[in-house]
Amino acid sequence: MSNHQDRLTALREQLVRQSLDGFVVPLTDEHMSEYVGAYAQRLAWLTGFQGSAGSAVVLPLEAAIFVDGRYTLQVREQVEGAQWHYENVPQTSIAAWLKDHAGAGGRIGYDPWLHTRAWVKQASEALSGKGARLVAVDTNPIDSIWPDRPVPSGARLVVHEDRFAGQGAADKRAAMAAWLQTSQADAVILSALDSIAWTFNIRGRDVDRTPVALAYAIIHADATADLFVAPEKIDAGVTAHLGDAVRVHDRSAFAGALAALSGKTVVADPERAVAAIFDALEAGGATVLALRDPAVLPKAIKNATEIAGHKAAQARDGAALSRFLHWLSIEAPGGGLDELGAAARLEAFRRDTGELVDLSFDTISGAGPNGAIVHYRAGPKTNRTIENGSLYLVDSGGQYRDGTTDVTRTIAIGTPTEEMKRRFTLVLKGHIALASAVFPKGTRGSQLDALARQFLWAEGLDYAHGTGHGVGSFLSVHEGPQRIATTGGADEPLAAGMIISNEPGYYKTGEYGIRIENLVLVESRDVAQAERDMLGFETLTFAPIDRHAIDVALLTPAERGWLDNYHRRVLQIVGPQLDGDARGWLETACAPLGAQPA
Amino acid sequence: MSNHQDRLTALREQLVRQSLDGFVVPLTDEHMSEYVGAYAQRLAWLTGFQGSAGSAVVLPLEAAIFVDGRYTLQVREQVEGAQWHYENVPQTSIAAWLKDHAGAGGRIGYDPWLHTRAWVKQASEALSGKGARLVAVDTNPIDSIWPDRPVPSGARLVVHEDRFAGQGAADKRAAMAAWLQTSQADAVILSALDSIAWTFNIRGRDVDRTPVALAYAIIHADATADLFVAPEKIDAGVTAHLGDAVRVHDRSAFAGALAALSGKTVVADPERAVAAIFDALEAGGATVLALRDPAVLPKAIKNATEIAGHKAAQARDGAALSRFLHWLSIEAPGGGLDELGAAARLEAFRRDTGELVDLSFDTISGAGPNGAIVHYRAGPKTNRTIENGSLYLVDSGGQYRDGTTDVTRTIAIGTPTEEMKRRFTLVLKGHIALASAVFPKGTRGSQLDALARQFLWAEGLDYAHGTGHGVGSFLSVHEGPQRIATTGGADEPLAAGMIISNEPGYYKTGEYGIRIENLVLVESRDVAQAERDMLGFETLTFAPIDRHAIDVALLTPAERGWLDNYHRRVLQIVGPQLDGDARGWLETACAPLGAQPA
Repeated sequence: MSNHQDRLTALREQLVRQSLDGFVVPLTDEHMSEYVGAYAQRLAWLTGFQGSAGSAVVLPLEAAIFVDGRYTLQVREQVEGAQWHYENVPQTSIAAWLKDHAGAGGRIGYDPWLHTRAWVKQASEALSGKGARLVAVDTNPIDSIWPDRPVPSGARLVVHEDRFAGQGAADKRAAMAAWLQTSQADAVILSALDSIAWTFNIRGRDVDRTPVALAYAIIHADATADLFVAPEKIDAGVTAHLGDAVRVHDRSAFAGALAALSGKTVVADPERAVAAIFDALEAGGATVLALRDPAVLPKAIKNATEIAGHKAAQARDGAALSRFLHWLSIEAPGGGLDELGAAARLEAFRRDTGELVDLSFDTISGAGPNGAIVHYRAGPKTNRTIENGSLYLVDSGGQYRDGTTDVTRTIAIGTPTEEMKRRFTLVLKGHIALASAVFPKGTRGSQLDALARQFLWAEGLDYAHGTGHGVGSFLSVHEGPQRIATTGGADEPLAAGMIISNEPGYYKTGEYGIRIENLVLVESRDVAQAERDMLGFETLTFAPIDRHAIDVALLTPAERGWLDNYHRRVLQIVGPQLDGDARGWLETACAPLGAQPA
Repeated sequence: MSNHQDRLTALREQLVRQSLDGFVVPLTDEHMSEYVGAYAQRLAWLTGFQGSAGSAVVLPLEAAIFVDGRYTLQVREQVEGAQWHYENVPQTSIAAWLKDHAGAGGRIGYDPWLHTRAWVKQASEALSGKGARLVAVDTNPIDSIWPDRPVPSGARLVVHEDRFAGQGAADKRAAMAAWLQTSQADAVILSALDSIAWTFNIRGRDVDRTPVALAYAIIHADATADLFVAPEKIDAGVTAHLGDAVRVHDRSAFAGALAALSGKTVVADPERAVAAIFDALEAGGATVLALRDPAVLPKAIKNATEIAGHKAAQARDGAALSRFLHWLSIEAPGGGLDELGAAARLEAFRRDTGELVDLSFDTISGAGPNGAIVHYRAGPKTNRTIENGSLYLVDSGGQYRDGTTDVTRTIAIGTPTEEMKRRFTLVLKGHIALASAVFPKGTRGSQLDALARQFLWAEGLDYAHGTGHGVGSFLSVHEGPQRIATTGGADEPLAAGMIISNEPGYYKTGEYGIRIENLVLVESRDVAQAERDMLGFETLTFAPIDRHAIDVALLTPAERGWLDNYHRRVLQIVGPQLDGDARGWLETACAPLGAQPA
């Protein structure tokens, strides 16, 4: 840890040089991305924290790292408690912590390319009571002390063909232009990387696990666009694909282009565009309309081509996962497997499909107590053997050109305890209740969340994460705006065509973790004599759910029927792709519950 | 209707005299009350609308009345479509409608004593696009043209004794004073009538069905208070009860007292205090802190004395309702009963307890298709015979000194259709699911709402009202801040001690309505091996649920167990209060489902 202690000391010295009394370090990039390129991994470099969400504050004499419920265990293993306070969000926030800890009259720095305006406002207000203030820096002080900071990736753009996208890029721009005219605006700023990738039907390789390219875009009311991206990323094929209506500029020209929108009415998304974008537009004399990025909703609502592609990807991915589960059933009971080995074998099965572009996120391969760390990533120091009598949790997914997958299975290695089986079954009942839900058009994910938790709640149990997140089409594995969750941010009405995960879980710290995750498609549902427009879910993920972990007596006839029907579908879709022992294993794994497994 | 047409004409002439191009007519009073005294029934006087929630806008050439889903049928029966547009909220709003319909540059009047500041701000912004503006009136133009407008009630205050309140008024003021000190404020304005009644342990008779008195109050950080109330309402007993720390002033002195808080930091509740209060405080030089009325949460969380009182009231009220249901079972099949007669008989059974102070709201006595009008109030013109083969819905409650009740039963008169039974049973299943829910501390009512709707949803059905509202202790039958509902305003975490209704329903326009409503108490729930602090509901209302209307085959064993257990409790609590035929009827009505009723 001394490495990170030295970095903290160096940052404090740099803050003195920049006349700052503190600095805020978020885990994001200039695009408010959830997963970021290596060049933007400032939080990990400074603290050692490897999780996918978090932030930190450094003051002259103390420092704090802020993580959510998924990372409360992990942060204590990766970040040195001697230098860092551990803080939980949403119980506290950077703003609240700064209010208590910042010195009176201090200057707390922030990088305006890494925060929303709402954050700046909230934190400024919290500080104002102490006479302290937030100060936007021109140069991020971490970049000044990070000698071997990676340069942004120079990977080439790739065209996302219409046979996958289902709608041409010119059509998408035309729809946005029509929307701009309705909104009486001249242009819209796109800064979210997946929105840009979706709008232009391009993909990139600048961020691990998410096929996006570092870029900005301005779409105009005449349906032309300016795309800001490193020119060396664009080959002749991409140039031809973009066409004459798209003007390509270097990424570094973006800030200047904002200043040149003087006199125009320009849309920017306050949740997705950073404070610096608003600052530059206003300083340049544009009138800013704060509206949601117009790519967000059509990107979330998949068209028929995207849905068909996703189903093809799921069939392929389900076969890879099933092969892995078969392999695991042979290898694990011997006690010779560990987390890293299992994850590598699972990736190899996915690569064997010949279609895998990348994983959709770092595989969570959690044996025994590591399964209770919700977003665990196995490393050489934490790598555990998969032991008999334990539960093994594996959450993984693939990026294929036709779709992005995300699936979690929890496997009983040997004989599970009665408690494990009971709690696995409670999670399964919640998964089935959500998968089976029928609900009126307009229903928000927050209304459905309790359906997945009710059986755990009845026994005094719960899980500290959301129940469902949107998933992109060969894009981000976490995609908005829809969510299924207890807390805020799950207020987007679910709409037919959205893909969302169904992933209740249960975690017993120090012992085991359980999660059962399938992706589902929101679909219109014809109900006889219905008086409302109804929606339901079609499950899209196909791989066996471990029958050895189920306490069948806790299932109702309807729940047993759901699981038997699900396994019948797994056998239909995955079965023809397997042969030999694997096929036989799948048939046993998918047999109706009435026929108990051997 | 010509009466109301003349009034509309008179209002338009008055608007001309006040140089206004329009006027907004809400259904509330200076206290943002839901139910208001006769003097404040301006909307009913102007339009004929008798519902409990709505508002109107009058412009020179058109007028509109705005109601929610409960009143979409009723408004068409009571308000003349030739003069009035019918508008639904929340699909539209006064602000949105004004934006479309007000003339450019017009002056739209509003009474600042009848609106929140948030409403004024929103409506002003909507109008600003047309160059129109909202104008606060000094005199409400309706009051100028309403010749026989009732004067506010002069009813005497009554002391709400500690044996009912469970906490002395001085204690309550001391707690508020401590909170003011923590909030660094000098005083808090109380304008909600139930908050004032609760804080001072007084009750009144100024509003039908709600035992409150027209008053305002200012509580100071030294635990003294100013109470603004008509002096003739106070007798020597109340004076002694209030004590020396409470200074009594005429209600008309309130506005002046606000202006005199110059230099003080004063709390006012933006949801409960009208715009005029904020205007007066700011004009007078006070610093206003917009925080929630500090009586709201402790009033909602009942203490042990209030809970015990409520249970005593429920036992008494359940016996009165059971006697009524027995009487109905004899009288209704003959076809000689009508809605008004049944409601009068039910009120008589409640009065026979000797403890009834008032009904807690106008009884909803809906036969056949009238049951589908969610907040129906029978009148001579709408009064229907209760017919064989129909459903009869009766939603009613009593104000007793020890508690406020609210209960709905739906009774099959003769033989119900299979569809009626199926849908009654879907509603019952939702009622049971909510009654049986266990959930972690911090859960909001909006998270639980779908539990009550899920079975209707599965068949494409729903109901257009909330699932649960808070209920006061000998106070308002609709009390915040907790709710169980689909839409906003159900974000208050449920807390042990809160009383809330559980009232899913189903309404088939023109045919029948179904609602099953009990009150429940939020309670801590000890769950073996629980890892969270859990809450659950204790059902408080005891009266038979009509077994003739149930399709038993649709109930799970757990649901049948819930209903049998509920009926066993009804028999325990209500049984000893009945005798003779009524007792025998109750035993049959409460028999376990296994033993089918004759």
